[in-house]
Amino acid sequence: MALPSKVKIVEVGPRDGLQNEKTAISAEVKIALIDLLSDAGFVNVEAASFVSPKWVPQMASSVEVMAGIRRRPGTIYSALAPNMQGLEAALAANVDEIVIFGAASEAFSQKNINCSIAESIERFRPVAEAAKRHGKLLRGALSCAFGCPYQGEVSTEAVADVVRRLRDLGCDEIDIADTIGVATANRVRPVMESAIREFPIERLSAHFHDTYGQALANIYASLEVGITIYHSSVAGLGGCPYAKGATGNVATEDVLYLMQGLGIETGVDLNAVVEAGRFISSHLGRPSNSRAGAALAAKLLS
Amino acid sequence: MALPSKVKIVEVGPRDGLQNEKTAISAEVKIALIDLLSDAGFVNVEAASFVSPKWVPQMASSVEVMAGIRRRPGTIYSALAPNMQGLEAALAANVDEIVIFGAASEAFSQKNINCSIAESIERFRPVAEAAKRHGKLLRGALSCAFGCPYQGEVSTEAVADVVRRLRDLGCDEIDIADTIGVATANRVRPVMESAIREFPIERLSAHFHDTYGQALANIYASLEVGITIYHSSVAGLGGCPYAKGATGNVATEDVLYLMQGLGIETGVDLNAVVEAGRFISSHLGRPSNSRAGAALAAKLLS
Repeated sequence: MALPSKVKIVEVGPRDGLQNEKTAISAEVKIALIDLLSDAGFVNVEAASFVSPKWVPQMASSVEVMAGIRRRPGTIYSALAPNMQGLEAALAANVDEIVIFGAASEAFSQKNINCSIAESIERFRPVAEAAKRHGKLLRGALSCAFGCPYQGEVSTEAVADVVRRLRDLGCDEIDIADTIGVATANRVRPVMESAIREFPIERLSAHFHDTYGQALANIYASLEVGITIYHSSVAGLGGCPYAKGATGNVATEDVLYLMQGLGIETGVDLNAVVEAGRFISSHLGRPSNSRAGAALAAKLLS
Repeated sequence: MALPSKVKIVEVGPRDGLQNEKTAISAEVKIALIDLLSDAGFVNVEAASFVSPKWVPQMASSVEVMAGIRRRPGTIYSALAPNMQGLEAALAANVDEIVIFGAASEAFSQKNINCSIAESIERFRPVAEAAKRHGKLLRGALSCAFGCPYQGEVSTEAVADVVRRLRDLGCDEIDIADTIGVATANRVRPVMESAIREFPIERLSAHFHDTYGQALANIYASLEVGITIYHSSVAGLGGCPYAKGATGNVATEDVLYLMQGLGIETGVDLNAVVEAGRFISSHLGRPSNSRAGAALAAKLLS
């Protein structure tokens, strides 16, 4: 079976990761982290979120962060914008890509943002239109594609439906996320194929969580399906809000180790990511959540 | 691609796991752990090692442990026996299966046991013959099949050569182990196929380490090759002696979560293993090394 020869890794640690960490991280440290990641060679870094600091205090420094980072030519810096106020701030900060989101689970949508999936997509319509009007890239993040903490199972039809809605809003990329990490490898093909029927495979990304240790197996299964964009988080930043003490985002170092072993080009320097992981883990005061990161750091120190 | 419908999980935590933990565990706690694992439904538990306590102090209580456990009908209790003295002790303790071992790396063999691969196999010959004469099962463990901490790469020819030697000693099962956890999924097929050419696939097992987070992806790739026996360690017991702070054996809970998701029968009760993992982790005074174990334990407590 031929796997892709090249993939794109989207580094989400500075936003999706740090947003879900309990320890507050200063703008200065975030800026240093993003610069380290840019230098490591990522072509896409999720850097900020322009949401109300009342709801997400970890992202209150987004304006300062976007103003402080060095923009590496060729790297796309992404930010979440849940509404027009957020979009205006994101435009002012000159982000390259606007991220909007929707769940594949009605129960999750209701619990998380107090409205139906269809309503949530409609609320994003002006954001999406303004983003495109300003020449920004637009990414749609589809959460709970493999299961929901409230309703349990999520059908492939529900995934396809939200992919279609995000596509119709003009998304350049759509991210299929296993928000609670419940997927096993056999579920990857049917879910991804339901998305591929609605959207070009080369602009679909996979975002796995390692809550049950399944992320790398799921990524391998996604490579077999032909997916070429993967989201991951340096040092496995970000926990799982649905199981205390459990792991969240798959760690970038583990993903890069896999790709390197498979001979798949990423353009990212694994050792530089290990260093970035050590840097942010020391500021969080805890060991890295990346197994490859911990092993490679131990080797560097020995 | 059709995966196997049923696999055997060999639980190695009480021996391979605890032997590589720094914290000393009493015979009483080991006995309780093995009994919990038997009750969970494992048909094979690696329980003891009859080696000199001078070299492996963690295994000094092996006689006491084998005498103290409840023997579950249908469960095979295995023990390492590196020489005739060890074999006599293992026979006296009435173990069901004798484990002998050899490396696929000359450098590792020399560093680890001070002799060549060929010499090490010859030293096991009387042990193997006596084990068979006494009607015991015989398992050969083949370490460094995917890479060596000293020589680096290990060829598939070297793996095939040691498989052949272990087969000729009369091994009923042969275990292909990634002792330092360096394998990625693309290496699984060539290594396993080199073993399959020498030995029946249904009696070959795969033993992966999660040092770089790759174990589950490698197990998934092994299922695709058709391997039906997997070694794993409750709570991921056992570290990696080659990288301080790094992970060792793949965690049984993560493997069971994968098999359950894939609809592959194991006969083992995952929740009971999560409980066994909590029990031994509390005695080690550290969090579980199993991601599924940690997540499921958090759910049980919430």
